[in-house]
Amino acid sequence: MQRDKILNTPTIRRMPTYLHKLLKMQLEGKTRVSSTELAEYMNIELIVVRKDIALTGISGQRRVGYEIDELIRYIKAYLGWENTIYATLIGAGSLGSALLGYDDFRHYGLEIDTVFDRDPAKIGHEIRGREVFDIESLETRLATKVPEIAILCVSNPAAQQIADRLVKLGVRYIWNFANVALQVPDGVIVQREVIAGGLAMLTVRIKNERMKSETSGLSKFFRKLKK
Amino acid sequence: MQRDKILNTPTIRRMPTYLHKLLKMQLEGKTRVSSTELAEYMNIELIVVRKDIALTGISGQRRVGYEIDELIRYIKAYLGWENTIYATLIGAGSLGSALLGYDDFRHYGLEIDTVFDRDPAKIGHEIRGREVFDIESLETRLATKVPEIAILCVSNPAAQQIADRLVKLGVRYIWNFANVALQVPDGVIVQREVIAGGLAMLTVRIKNERMKSETSGLSKFFRKLKK
Repeated sequence: MQRDKILNTPTIRRMPTYLHKLLKMQLEGKTRVSSTELAEYMNIELIVVRKDIALTGISGQRRVGYEIDELIRYIKAYLGWENTIYATLIGAGSLGSALLGYDDFRHYGLEIDTVFDRDPAKIGHEIRGREVFDIESLETRLATKVPEIAILCVSNPAAQQIADRLVKLGVRYIWNFANVALQVPDGVIVQREVIAGGLAMLTVRIKNERMKSETSGLSKFFRKLKK
Repeated sequence: MQRDKILNTPTIRRMPTYLHKLLKMQLEGKTRVSSTELAEYMNIELIVVRKDIALTGISGQRRVGYEIDELIRYIKAYLGWENTIYATLIGAGSLGSALLGYDDFRHYGLEIDTVFDRDPAKIGHEIRGREVFDIESLETRLATKVPEIAILCVSNPAAQQIADRLVKLGVRYIWNFANVALQVPDGVIVQREVIAGGLAMLTVRIKNERMKSETSGLSKFFRKLKK
């Protein structure tokens, strides 16, 4: 029954992109989608899309495609996005502001309802429609309403100390954008976001492509030699 | 010979985090690292670390650990990060500024040497030490020195048009932070960065943990019944 630990990372990471496309199609008044359409949108192979979708538990409808509303429901259930998740954002610098401006979060049921910073120039002002509170008021403001997720967009040196305060408050899930391995007690889940992970994906793909064209250049050369 | 297409996504995404740790240890004057230390730092299982490291092609040194300098070289080679990669950043909004402030890029050999925006309030000013150029000067500025990578941090509606201009200029690799599936000709590689992918990872882990504790609650209940 208990199949966790080994997460299907690529599938999970693709799910929000399917969802993004499906929500857009829904807005456009469409009701059905084929796996071929999704594969084209994602620029991945059809078999990958079918496997991904099968993992949500929706029953296969190969010939007629999927009902968009239903597929959205299954993907949201797969991701645990059926109910609104309340989050606090710590750090309203450039990255924090970028996250506040990420429109899709609302559609995914993520509601960032408090924002904290230590910068006096930001405290009391609004960023993207949310008031920024003094980080010193973290405990008093959140004590009665502990957020499910804390999004950490603070500087690397500040991250551990803020994490300690959040854990003490009862926060159990941290989405950590600081480039630091946080030390947290058992039962607290930290998802560390490493921006350079995407760069690594890109450069490996570039390397593979270069090797491929070198190889094909070489095989052309050998074919020529044979003639 | 040609084992591409199926990328080992989780491994590739972890590599920059190993590298981050190794560069830090190097700065601290350390010369050797064990896979156990890396596993603890990453909070993942030892076997995963060993498999990741083996994929770089470095020869195993289980008992004595790895030489840090050598492992850094192997990871950089695996990622294609041995030589400086020159990039242009399009869009100096909050996300673009955050990327400009990401110190580790320099250590990874990524050099963002030009920045473009369409906002008159930004053009001609510096952001994190780099002058922001008018997006209208994209072609004239980059014609003689086409960047290897373009980092796209523009709004969703602007993304496709900017991508078209970049491709026309000869840019072949795009790191796309806009939430849009870009249409590009064959041979152009787009790495789409979906911030919500990390949120999906976190919420799936939360869901798994909750299911686990419910299951263990249930088994406790049954154990009690048996007594």
